Amino acid sequence: MQFLWGVKTVCFVRKDTIMRQLSLLTDLYEFSMANGFQQELPDTWGTFDVFFRKVPDHGSFVISAGLQQVVEALQQFTFTAADLTYFKSLDLWDDDFLDYLASFQMQCKLTAVPEGTPVFPREPFLTIEGPLAQAQLLETLILNIVNHQSLIATKARRMTYAANGRPIMEFGARRAQGPDSAVYGTRAAIIGGALSTSNVLAAQQFDIPVAGTMAHSWIQAFDDELTAFRTWAKHYPDNSALLVDTYDVLTSGVPNAITVFQELRAQGHEPVGIRIDSGDVAALTTQARAMLDAAGFPNAKITISNALDETIITSLLHQGAPVDNFGIGENLITSASAPVLSGVYKLAAVEQDGHCIPKIKISASRAKLTMPGKKQVYRLYRPGTNVAFADLIALQNEPVTTLKELAVYDSNPINLKAQRPLTDFEARPLLKATDLSANDFPSLATIRKHSQAQLETLPAPTQRLVNPDEYPVYMTAALAELQAQLAAVD
Amino acid sequence: MQFLWGVKTVCFVRKDTIMRQLSLLTDLYEFSMANGFQQELPDTWGTFDVFFRKVPDHGSFVISAGLQQVVEALQQFTFTAADLTYFKSLDLWDDDFLDYLASFQMQCKLTAVPEGTPVFPREPFLTIEGPLAQAQLLETLILNIVNHQSLIATKARRMTYAANGRPIMEFGARRAQGPDSAVYGTRAAIIGGALSTSNVLAAQQFDIPVAGTMAHSWIQAFDDELTAFRTWAKHYPDNSALLVDTYDVLTSGVPNAITVFQELRAQGHEPVGIRIDSGDVAALTTQARAMLDAAGFPNAKITISNALDETIITSLLHQGAPVDNFGIGENLITSASAPVLSGVYKLAAVEQDGHCIPKIKISASRAKLTMPGKKQVYRLYRPGTNVAFADLIALQNEPVTTLKELAVYDSNPINLKAQRPLTDFEARPLLKATDLSANDFPSLATIRKHSQAQLETLPAPTQRLVNPDEYPVYMTAALAELQAQLAAVD
Repeated sequence: MQFLWGVKTVCFVRKDTIMRQLSLLTDLYEFSMANGFQQELPDTWGTFDVFFRKVPDHGSFVISAGLQQVVEALQQFTFTAADLTYFKSLDLWDDDFLDYLASFQMQCKLTAVPEGTPVFPREPFLTIEGPLAQAQLLETLILNIVNHQSLIATKARRMTYAANGRPIMEFGARRAQGPDSAVYGTRAAIIGGALSTSNVLAAQQFDIPVAGTMAHSWIQAFDDELTAFRTWAKHYPDNSALLVDTYDVLTSGVPNAITVFQELRAQGHEPVGIRIDSGDVAALTTQARAMLDAAGFPNAKITISNALDETIITSLLHQGAPVDNFGIGENLITSASAPVLSGVYKLAAVEQDGHCIPKIKISASRAKLTMPGKKQVYRLYRPGTNVAFADLIALQNEPVTTLKELAVYDSNPINLKAQRPLTDFEARPLLKATDLSANDFPSLATIRKHSQAQLETLPAPTQRLVNPDEYPVYMTAALAELQAQLAAVD
Repeated sequence: MQFLWGVKTVCFVRKDTIMRQLSLLTDLYEFSMANGFQQELPDTWGTFDVFFRKVPDHGSFVISAGLQQVVEALQQFTFTAADLTYFKSLDLWDDDFLDYLASFQMQCKLTAVPEGTPVFPREPFLTIEGPLAQAQLLETLILNIVNHQSLIATKARRMTYAANGRPIMEFGARRAQGPDSAVYGTRAAIIGGALSTSNVLAAQQFDIPVAGTMAHSWIQAFDDELTAFRTWAKHYPDNSALLVDTYDVLTSGVPNAITVFQELRAQGHEPVGIRIDSGDVAALTTQARAMLDAAGFPNAKITISNALDETIITSLLHQGAPVDNFGIGENLITSASAPVLSGVYKLAAVEQDGHCIPKIKISASRAKLTMPGKKQVYRLYRPGTNVAFADLIALQNEPVTTLKELAVYDSNPINLKAQRPLTDFEARPLLKATDLSANDFPSLATIRKHSQAQLETLPAPTQRLVNPDEYPVYMTAALAELQAQLAAVD
């Protein structure tokens, strides 16, 4: 990672990068159901799918994120003596169930797409298979983690797309929805394409380049702006990115910055640049650029950081604003324009005495019809290329990778049910078995690269921010027939 | 707290209720500035104000929350050996500063309004005074905590207002922005008026009534709905709140529920009620109510839980929908319609050699002009009553409580500067010194009651959800003159 505008990166891992024990981060009814399942159906296993129906901001895909933290939380899924005392005080469940929790042994199996993979509506991107009671208990915790991180990764991807090659810096810690929202949100923002963060805790825990210079309070603390800039340059001669909008950008901030830049250069240091945090950024950056260029500082970078989002970034670049870096706060760390990813965790099958019974949830709304059975998701490529053209949801026992021809249906239950033949494809499975005893995970840099590489395989019109082309997600004829059959029977 | 719809409350406190060590949850530039301040102005103290300019959802006030977690985080504000190794690896600051951090001793003083207090734009509701370097280091952490919790408390207050006496249950853990967002968001939701939560971890940590029954997966796991309901009733004969929308509410769910309710009653148990999670809730609840009443279950409660917010609650009640409880997920726990509270932390004064120098931040936008000086905020009541009619921001040394007459100005810098005389008031200070060594805090129930009592002192038109009346926030003539003087000079 290049050194950039005060951005430093080091390789450093500490123990508390591991997601803490969170076995009680669960809705009460999961425990009540688990108690019932444990007594009524102790030998029944269930398969649950995690998927979403709508993409935030009317995009076409979501960047999946959070798998590492899910695995870490599941590795610590036990209950303490204090937890058991609390459960007992609730007086809702009998002692057998409390004993079961006291000696809880995770038997569930997890499959998931690798973090950073773009995924589409209705396709499972994580599945849990295990004893019904256990699998039920994991619903809330898993959804909390993957809904959050996938939401922020997806938002960061939109902003990265808008910035068109210019770095995105994550600056949102103060407006995040609590400490985890800042720390894991930053992790997700990097997966989605952000280059660096101002958040020291996230940077330390996940080895992320860390960035930032000064706030207005630095300027205010001194008698005047020039003194504040000079003092900064004395301490950080090679990291002098000066905040120029405390008083007035063009009559005070930029002229004072240029004065200090000239002094720095006389001492053998090159200035980093300026940051503008308010005002009409399109006009101010254009005029500031001209002033810096005229003063002999064409390489001084201009960073902006005032309530940016992908729409404003697009607009600024469309106006030709000479912005080098974007520092993004609340609109990234909370995904403010669409602050919820509505991932769900739905029962797809139960297994009793070796028989798999597919399950469906019907609803008054056709759009909410679930896909029954144990499934696999494939990305379909033109053979011998990395050009993906559709995804395919199939039943687990269908030999999709070896077939040359397939009959498929649109997977969206609100669309017409017309069969369509598929030939000329290479199907690569997306869901991979994930070892719950793993303690090494891909680095964030690796996940970020994987995400970028996966995106490059998708059709370009799928990726644009406004009215993206819908990417086809098919289901096999066998799955479509099973769904129709169960929907009609129930 | 009454026992209600499977809601249980117990008194239980555990050690990890304490906000964990978060000293690195800070923007990098805070450290860089602290390093500079420590070297340039080691004996200068600063006073920083926390305030906001805009209320989410165009409301008129914010319910302040998060103070306990701020105090707990400040109590643990130290740096570990691993932190120092990380800092060293960044190679941004010299060894003197690292030594300073290694032996960090908190000297800052904190004042704040009690949690649950409604606060208005521009008035400081938390202040930090301390050595500049120290006070600067706390900015990000404090804002993260109070912005988050105050946002969610405010949203819960709006929903509580809309529900007009009916209980609000917090159900959002799976859609929260990470684990802390679920846990501390729930804490804040209770402060703002929610009665209970489904989140077991939050309930355990903060002694909150915990609620919930079954999900669709319980129904799906059995061969048919009636069997699923019967099995539930067997395990929870006194907590039989049945989810009736897995297949069809009126032709399947409610009739099956009534069958099981009759069986329960025959065994001497009274049913709790039903929950509806999809469909046209206004129509479905009306018809379900009629069916339950006709079957002899007029006391069976109807709970709804489908993507609710204060607008939908208002609309449903306006249509006469017979809803007894509201279970609210994502729109509460993320404050989805307005997911950011933009609280800021601004330098108001520095103190050198015993002299206090007020500071201001000027901006191209008049609305962003800050209020200089060390200040106190007063709520003005009609004498001898609990009827508040305005808030007043004053300089700390003004003897507001003993005055009978005051000259005040509107505190909003975008409004006209007309002086207005005030008489007939009783001024009660809102900002209170907060002991940073405290380890006992008011219970959530106490805070919730305080909040409700404070709200009752405010004019009713201030509290409505749509177009609330603006509550006056004045500043004293002395403060207004100081602001004008500093704004003109700089």
